[in-house]
Amino acid sequence: MPTILGQNQYGKAENRVVRIVRDGDTHHIKDLNVSVALSGDMEDVHRSGSNAHVLPTDTTKNTVFAFAKEHGVESAEAFGVHLARHFVTSQEPIHRARIRIEEYAWGRIGDGAGHSFVRQGRETRVSQITYDGAGWEVLSGLRDLTVLNSTDSEFWGYVKDRYTTLTEAYDRILATDVSALWRYSWQDDGQAAPDWNGCYQRARDHILGAFADTYSLSLQQTLHQMGERVIDTCAEIDEIRFSLPNKHHFLVDLEPFGLTNENEVYFAADRPYGLIEATILRDGATARIPVDMTHL
Amino acid sequence: MPTILGQNQYGKAENRVVRIVRDGDTHHIKDLNVSVALSGDMEDVHRSGSNAHVLPTDTTKNTVFAFAKEHGVESAEAFGVHLARHFVTSQEPIHRARIRIEEYAWGRIGDGAGHSFVRQGRETRVSQITYDGAGWEVLSGLRDLTVLNSTDSEFWGYVKDRYTTLTEAYDRILATDVSALWRYSWQDDGQAAPDWNGCYQRARDHILGAFADTYSLSLQQTLHQMGERVIDTCAEIDEIRFSLPNKHHFLVDLEPFGLTNENEVYFAADRPYGLIEATILRDGATARIPVDMTHL
Amino acid sequence: MPTILGQNQYGKAENRVVRIVRDGDTHHIKDLNVSVALSGDMEDVHRSGSNAHVLPTDTTKNTVFAFAKEHGVESAEAFGVHLARHFVTSQEPIHRARIRIEEYAWGRIGDGAGHSFVRQGRETRVSQITYDGAGWEVLSGLRDLTVLNSTDSEFWGYVKDRYTTLTEAYDRILATDVSALWRYSWQDDGQAAPDWNGCYQRARDHILGAFADTYSLSLQQTLHQMGERVIDTCAEIDEIRFSLPNKHHFLVDLEPFGLTNENEVYFAADRPYGLIEATILRDGATARIPVDMTHL
Amino acid sequence: MPTILGQNQYGKAENRVVRIVRDGDTHHIKDLNVSVALSGDMEDVHRSGSNAHVLPTDTTKNTVFAFAKEHGVESAEAFGVHLARHFVTSQEPIHRARIRIEEYAWGRIGDGAGHSFVRQGRETRVSQITYDGAGWEVLSGLRDLTVLNSTDSEFWGYVKDRYTTLTEAYDRILATDVSALWRYSWQDDGQAAPDWNGCYQRARDHILGAFADTYSLSLQQTLHQMGERVIDTCAEIDEIRFSLPNKHHFLVDLEPFGLTNENEVYFAADRPYGLIEATILRDGATARIPVDMTHL
Repeated sequence: MPTILGQNQYGKAENRVVRIVRDGDTHHIKDLNVSVALSGDMEDVHRSGSNAHVLPTDTTKNTVFAFAKEHGVESAEAFGVHLARHFVTSQEPIHRARIRIEEYAWGRIGDGAGHSFVRQGRETRVSQITYDGAGWEVLSGLRDLTVLNSTDSEFWGYVKDRYTTLTEAYDRILATDVSALWRYSWQDDGQAAPDWNGCYQRARDHILGAFADTYSLSLQQTLHQMGERVIDTCAEIDEIRFSLPNKHHFLVDLEPFGLTNENEVYFAADRPYGLIEATILRDGATARIPVDMTHL
Repeated sequence: MPTILGQNQYGKAENRVVRIVRDGDTHHIKDLNVSVALSGDMEDVHRSGSNAHVLPTDTTKNTVFAFAKEHGVESAEAFGVHLARHFVTSQEPIHRARIRIEEYAWGRIGDGAGHSFVRQGRETRVSQITYDGAGWEVLSGLRDLTVLNSTDSEFWGYVKDRYTTLTEAYDRILATDVSALWRYSWQDDGQAAPDWNGCYQRARDHILGAFADTYSLSLQQTLHQMGERVIDTCAEIDEIRFSLPNKHHFLVDLEPFGLTNENEVYFAADRPYGLIEATILRDGATARIPVDMTHL
Repeated sequence: MPTILGQNQYGKAENRVVRIVRDGDTHHIKDLNVSVALSGDMEDVHRSGSNAHVLPTDTTKNTVFAFAKEHGVESAEAFGVHLARHFVTSQEPIHRARIRIEEYAWGRIGDGAGHSFVRQGRETRVSQITYDGAGWEVLSGLRDLTVLNSTDSEFWGYVKDRYTTLTEAYDRILATDVSALWRYSWQDDGQAAPDWNGCYQRARDHILGAFADTYSLSLQQTLHQMGERVIDTCAEIDEIRFSLPNKHHFLVDLEPFGLTNENEVYFAADRPYGLIEATILRDGATARIPVDMTHL
Repeated sequence: MPTILGQNQYGKAENRVVRIVRDGDTHHIKDLNVSVALSGDMEDVHRSGSNAHVLPTDTTKNTVFAFAKEHGVESAEAFGVHLARHFVTSQEPIHRARIRIEEYAWGRIGDGAGHSFVRQGRETRVSQITYDGAGWEVLSGLRDLTVLNSTDSEFWGYVKDRYTTLTEAYDRILATDVSALWRYSWQDDGQAAPDWNGCYQRARDHILGAFADTYSLSLQQTLHQMGERVIDTCAEIDEIRFSLPNKHHFLVDLEPFGLTNENEVYFAADRPYGLIEATILRDGATARIPVDMTHL
């Protein structure tokens, strides 16, 4: 047997479950995209095709929909905890479950009651809940939160080598699509779980606030401010990782047309883009968010 | 010469122009994607490759950026009017110009002043401005306005043939991504142009309102209500066309798991989807929006 | 009644049907995405929500799958003809049916027999079949056929106005994603239908051949050559429309680094791009392909 | 200082470089998308915004284009080795460089010579080259290689719990989009590097061959066969990881229409889909490909 089976996982990905709660005439909606990944004693199915240890991915799908009824969806994280616990505790060959959830936000049409909704496009809320029978790891975050400062950003004083042609900038647009993923310190069933929805709202607000408030000399500095602000204000969070594309807005040269351009007209470029990624940790915490896992 | 050259047009597509206006410390942003299409005396360039009548597409791009400075961007429609007029009146071989614009909405971070913005994802505003030297045609609209009613939708009493298996529904989710395109009656430079931004806001509000208020027996009925409401309340608009995918939300059968599902848990399907398209016209108006032009 | 109901249509879009034919151990595959749009006597469903004339979109979906069994899929066009005829002739309120089909090509893994396939990514074949009970209109074509000439393309001698900064090019890359849609002259059930698969193959080959063979002074000229070649060599085709983005490949300025660039290193840009569109007609034919219908 | 700066990296992503080589009238093309990520002594830029250690991302972009001229592009991997070595050895604060490259394949139009190309859509070739001044890690692979077996696939004998409703399948379609990433054992500049292009071709062929040849009782088994075949036949490769979506093709129930369906007509579903992921290692090798890095 010349090969070893390394890390492996399987399950049903992208189960699109919508949960409605009717509170009299006022309805509430949760709109999720849930992916299940299970690991465990799976040597046989890989080597011989025996499915004796395999709970079908179709069953994992059914479980997602059934649990939406049985447990409701208070938050994506709480829903993921129910699912992960179920698979690990009910199936002997399953030793580890990882649930990933995207959540799409809806607002109300009209006066704040009723049953009519309009989807908010702003950002997608994401989470990943992992359970191995002993402890929990919960990552939460967001992606596609697009922000722009039209001033208070500079970039100068950088290294210049043979291939450097960039001119220094003393007043530029700074724009990015924020992808952020944070890790909660909560691991132990015996302790109270964080207020998942409240923490999300707080982290999101501080990310936006830090972006707006920082007079930026580099996108790295802005990133660091965002991370510090979240760690400082959210005691439940030990670690946060960002992936920030520098969405370049180039000042257009209007001189050939006899016009000035005093930071008024920009070309919004697609590719290439700068890409700034970093983890900010609470002092004493251990980094656990993988380098490339800023996008779930 | 065995062939005839039919309709043809050319220009630079998808010019991503961002225009900042600084009003003291309060900045304003317009974020556009502008496409130019020019037609005229172009037989030669097609047959021999002679570019003697061809204003380069690169020049049309430059013009977009220069005009953002020279004329500003009060609205996408007004900006498109400046561009279309310029190409037709300044270049003898150009007989017709069509400008298409997508506009992306931004909100403010924080208290409503300043220079920090967050992109609103809700919908994309679109417009198409056409000028032939004599008169104007302005189409405006939106796409990707995603809405959902969690009740007050039924579907029954339909035709049943050999291939019909659908069961009737007396309380279903109704969800769609609204694409709408309306045509303004304004054609004549001598008359005052509509209040483009105000009309957009009003049409959008009435589309949302009609969706929310209609107890729906078919998506066609909801579409028609949206259209009537816009025509009734916007005197500047003569015609509106919708393309409404019926984004199916299937009630999940939870009985095999011993559970009931009283309109609580749905599967949001991707494909296939119903697609409902129609034009609503003011009495006496002529239909001019092409059948397939609900998506610009 | 202040409004008129204009053009309207409905049906199930994007039915993803895969048809396997087993010829002993050699299997054959057809992979289609079929959209149905029906029009007719539909005033009531729009105004009152009465579905008495409405064959459900779900039924149109079922019909697509049932017809894949009953009629097989010799070609997308022949399949569309079966479907369109069925809806118009079997349902009194339906006066017109339009079937749109995308077809994805598969090749074989290995020696040309068996049951193992690999999807060819090259282009998507498209068609639109329309029937109104009296006659037929069949459009066929392709999209996303990406081609590039690394020489034999120039661009100079163009109009220069105040906003022109482009420098003339005497040896440039010419690249585009071909979207083409052609119309067959066939309209009458009494006449033999074209060899749909053979015509497609011939038109595609001539488009590629004309692109490769033309020494190009403008993308318009290349487009025209493609169209002429198809009209000249395919007697069944009366009209063809192209939409050709000019996918700019900019020569990178390497001088600041002490390097020459003799047409060796290019930056492939995303946006903006030139966009060239035109119809080529057989002499005496009438243009029927809508201006914006190069992408089905 | 309550926070620690964890793993961080920066650089210009998605540099779209096209390299033409003219060998008389026969041209050759390489079409790459190159992303640069640099790490090192970057505490200051994050904390104070000082860019004294920061080579601009714009410079990393320039370097990509300049190196396409200076070194040519024999293979994506060899090109990445040049780039990674350059950044680490020429910039003292840079301790580690990671280059990611996508390569798009082009075929020739016509007889195999000349300067006219058509893009092959089949799959995207990917690679990641990492250098820390001491040793190398090279990952290569592919994504979006879509394959389908129309028979010789079963699925039965699985675990059944309260939520299981799936019926066993004894003859089903098996289809997937192969994402594979393998790690070369090569680490040491002193040793000859692998034949990158030859290895790619061999690994790809064996993946396709194993897919076609395996009578499959589970997608895990097929995955394992693919991996074993690559490890067995490519001595240069120590480890391979796959991510295989189970692209469900559901047999359509035609009975309501009085029709049989003997594995002829299928519905190709979008979401949800099974997702099977695993690493296969050479005996004695250490797993280094991250769990979620099957898609670069």
